[in-house]
Amino acid sequence: MNRNIDRMQTRMNDLGVRFRPHAKTSKCPDVIKRQIAAGARGITVSTLKEAERLHAEGVDDILYAVAIVPSKFDHALRLVRAGLKLSLLIESVVVAKQLSQFGIDHAQRFEVMIEVDTDGHRSGIDADSPVLLEIANALRLENACGGHLQGVLTHAGSSYSLRTDDALAAIAERERAGCVHAAERLRAVGHSCEVVSIGSTPTALSARRLDGVTEVRAGVYVFFDLVMAEVGVCRQEDIALSVLCTVIGHRPDAGWIITDGGWMAMSRDRGTQKQSHDYGYGMVCDVEGRPVDGLVFNEANQEHGVLGWTGDAAANLEGRFPVGSQLRIVPNHACATGAQHPAYHVVSSDRDSVAIWERFSGW
Amino acid sequence: MNRNIDRMQTRMNDLGVRFRPHAKTSKCPDVIKRQIAAGARGITVSTLKEAERLHAEGVDDILYAVAIVPSKFDHALRLVRAGLKLSLLIESVVVAKQLSQFGIDHAQRFEVMIEVDTDGHRSGIDADSPVLLEIANALRLENACGGHLQGVLTHAGSSYSLRTDDALAAIAERERAGCVHAAERLRAVGHSCEVVSIGSTPTALSARRLDGVTEVRAGVYVFFDLVMAEVGVCRQEDIALSVLCTVIGHRPDAGWIITDGGWMAMSRDRGTQKQSHDYGYGMVCDVEGRPVDGLVFNEANQEHGVLGWTGDAAANLEGRFPVGSQLRIVPNHACATGAQHPAYHVVSSDRDSVAIWERFSGW
Repeated sequence: MNRNIDRMQTRMNDLGVRFRPHAKTSKCPDVIKRQIAAGARGITVSTLKEAERLHAEGVDDILYAVAIVPSKFDHALRLVRAGLKLSLLIESVVVAKQLSQFGIDHAQRFEVMIEVDTDGHRSGIDADSPVLLEIANALRLENACGGHLQGVLTHAGSSYSLRTDDALAAIAERERAGCVHAAERLRAVGHSCEVVSIGSTPTALSARRLDGVTEVRAGVYVFFDLVMAEVGVCRQEDIALSVLCTVIGHRPDAGWIITDGGWMAMSRDRGTQKQSHDYGYGMVCDVEGRPVDGLVFNEANQEHGVLGWTGDAAANLEGRFPVGSQLRIVPNHACATGAQHPAYHVVSSDRDSVAIWERFSGW
Repeated sequence: MNRNIDRMQTRMNDLGVRFRPHAKTSKCPDVIKRQIAAGARGITVSTLKEAERLHAEGVDDILYAVAIVPSKFDHALRLVRAGLKLSLLIESVVVAKQLSQFGIDHAQRFEVMIEVDTDGHRSGIDADSPVLLEIANALRLENACGGHLQGVLTHAGSSYSLRTDDALAAIAERERAGCVHAAERLRAVGHSCEVVSIGSTPTALSARRLDGVTEVRAGVYVFFDLVMAEVGVCRQEDIALSVLCTVIGHRPDAGWIITDGGWMAMSRDRGTQKQSHDYGYGMVCDVEGRPVDGLVFNEANQEHGVLGWTGDAAANLEGRFPVGSQLRIVPNHACATGAQHPAYHVVSSDRDSVAIWERFSGW
């Protein structure tokens, strides 16, 4: 994990942009403090609960990167009044007007980012759409209170489905160029639009230039996972998260090993299903993290993992993996697997100590 | 939920068997207390954490229905010494010997169930296998301490993939007959084998007779879900669990509605994917729980749901489902969706009150 943090921060420093890691991956103050100590400036969150919890831990600059709706205005107001530098995301004219009015009514200024769509994968406004300017123009301040356009934000989530360096560099450039173009359109009609925020782990690690970008966001790089290894932006040995489980039984007739690590421990995420290698519910390794050839994590019940043996039919599974022995499962998707657990068991580089770092959950 | 509890308990009473609901679905003391108040005698758990938490809530008879391993003996010992009537599951000769020795060494008697496989779907010993008797014979008591064979247990989890009444009745009979046969083999060589424990929600609701069975287990019936509705053991309107989410944006060009309910709220469970109707990440309903024809929950990011419109191309999605409006998503799999949340928001039958019932998680 420390190497992953250093790798990303060094790259962002070299590219001359501010780095704002996404807290949704770890949801763990101990992890986030290390990202900030390495040089991150502010963080990104996906819920106001994350913002509230991390502000309580001393993080004072937070971007809430999911479009806000009026039912969450009160919560945002409490956070801003508590001293948090909070940026909110908007992708509709209606909410731009509602938030501005709410700010005016409550004598509070809100910093607003407009979500731009650069790859058609989810939400946001096309950089060339007239709606972009309509949203900016719908934001208003009265006596310095209301909604103020801080900048534009995009997330090229479609990068997760790519695999080659050239394709990744191309989507990174599309993400950059689209977001910068949106900012230029806004500036051309008089908005300062100071922040140009882009990012995903694959594009952050693949961009060849970031001209015009002021900050980059990325989340899963902190742990990495099999999906990212298949995308090609990390090696399997960079993956810092795994689930340690215990063999609880065998079905020699079926060639199965049964473990106590089911989908409750791994999550139901099957993110590698559509990639070049489908790892089932995760890659089976020995306790030291070395992949065990021939064992495939085919099926998961709530608290049972079913590992199928695909190797030599004469293999002595009960002798090689006896009841009580442990296996380490590397996850498809670190955000999803982490979310199944109340804490991380953190092993030091020299393996001499294990700490418990709590994570939070809920909304 | 109350109707689901009553339906199952009434059926078990009519069939003349003890009912031992599985706590893994709700992980919520308030739910489990209602199951016990309705007539359940003891509960089933899938982790010792569940046993510990529910014993602390006053549940005094708990079956831990995942095969135990030596690393968990100490935890089990603490629970038994704290006064819990705990039954442990075993499916290997090695662990039968280890647990007996552990009990002898610690002057404690452990009640043991042997896991029997009746449908080949996961773990357990074939009812006709010599290993069944070997495990029973490996259990031993010295001065009333060690491991004592209490009975046999099976779970026909393959019933989840069925759909017709006849197929369900057949798997239920196979589950019953196999487990009773295992008990009879053990009794024939002198073991009392008092408990014959079977069950899954589909088989519990489909069995036509339960001769020789002493107790039935089921979990998901308490809430039901889309998977169970597709299996055919409940109606969609029996499903007692849903996720309320808010529309946060639109992509009119793609015919998408974006909500704040992503996979963190639903889980990554895609249990209906292989059934006759694939509901994506859940069935989209209005706030009142009425299905919304034409809206399909195609994609989920961590905190974004992407609902695709399959109806009339001229539909005014922004007008019909404006930003800030709410939708209710009925889950594929209640156990997985519940596990994503720290508590249930419980609506009374008359809808006049909403309570918060906390659930627990972790191991």
